[in-house]
Amino acid sequence: MALAHKGLDFECMPWRFTEKNKIKFSGQERVPVLIDGNKTVADSWEIAKYLESAYPHSPSLKLMNGEVLFIKFWAETVLHPEILQLLVLDIHDNLRPEDQSYFRESREKLLGKTLEEVVVNRKDRLPRLQNLLTPLRSVFSKQKYLSGETPGFSDYILFGAFQWARCTSPFSLLNDDDIVYVWRDNMLNMHGGLALSAVGYPV
Amino acid sequence: MALAHKGLDFECMPWRFTEKNKIKFSGQERVPVLIDGNKTVADSWEIAKYLESAYPHSPSLKLMNGEVLFIKFWAETVLHPEILQLLVLDIHDNLRPEDQSYFRESREKLLGKTLEEVVVNRKDRLPRLQNLLTPLRSVFSKQKYLSGETPGFSDYILFGAFQWARCTSPFSLLNDDDIVYVWRDNMLNMHGGLALSAVGYPV
Repeated sequence: MALAHKGLDFECMPWRFTEKNKIKFSGQERVPVLIDGNKTVADSWEIAKYLESAYPHSPSLKLMNGEVLFIKFWAETVLHPEILQLLVLDIHDNLRPEDQSYFRESREKLLGKTLEEVVVNRKDRLPRLQNLLTPLRSVFSKQKYLSGETPGFSDYILFGAFQWARCTSPFSLLNDDDIVYVWRDNMLNMHGGLALSAVGYPV
Repeated sequence: MALAHKGLDFECMPWRFTEKNKIKFSGQERVPVLIDGNKTVADSWEIAKYLESAYPHSPSLKLMNGEVLFIKFWAETVLHPEILQLLVLDIHDNLRPEDQSYFRESREKLLGKTLEEVVVNRKDRLPRLQNLLTPLRSVFSKQKYLSGETPGFSDYILFGAFQWARCTSPFSLLNDDDIVYVWRDNMLNMHGGLALSAVGYPV
């Protein structure tokens, strides 16, 4: 989304959990990794900063807004853990067998339960997730995007959580009468429907 | 804090809950109310917007950062209710008798309990408040203010919650080894110690 926002051409390469060797050249073991000419950058935040400095004349991701950092850490520490506890078994089930065992072992260690135990009665916990989105509803009643009247990196951070959910699970996180649903729909259709074109479940 | 940030001279007028008549000229019943020449503006957000447009050449409050609106609604819907449930009885006890009955009645209706019931075992609930501040700790480990390397209105919104607490209650919300404490200390000492000069409890 950030690359499309900057108007850059790019090619996406799918990657699986256990393919650590494929990204070894980046000096670490996690995605995303960006290769731009002879430059390699890992970590979505570092990639966004790199794009802003390397392509200063294309549309800004508005990273200079200090509050974007709050959105990043709020998404990582509040939103993602709540979503993970709803979808972790679906994510597992969509992996290749060799990735499944890695995923199950690492996530069960992280969560202190079996994946099956984590998702038990998940429907009853959906209101808890939806309640976390309360500040967003007020924001979207006043402006179209988190970043203002045009999208910024904060929108892509937040959208990443919902795209992750849509690509890994048929479990709906948002009701269609939720203003956050409307915002997500805008994000899905943005940049020529880039996010909608990713393999995933219907919204 | 916003007036000081803009470098404007001002005079503060204390106001009490039941003094609705004193601010009747503003067309509503709540504070803050700003009088600037023959202009009257109520509501802190509207006041900040007014200051930005009326004084465009003094330091910006950075309201154009769309994410500030998220900070505002996060503070109002997540942080303030949690703080209120810790301090509501102290706030009550610091009021004049005629304000106490108004305050008790309206807040007990809002919270569905007596004020005494609300604050029972509040020490045990302090970790819950401190846990809500997790994203802030990550932000302050990367940059000095919520708004970046200089403070903005988002910092004043957040600080308002802690100043409200300090002015109404001796109950400490932050431990002095918390990076949020360090940030609050910066805020207290900013603009010639303006916030520290307000009547309140020691930090």
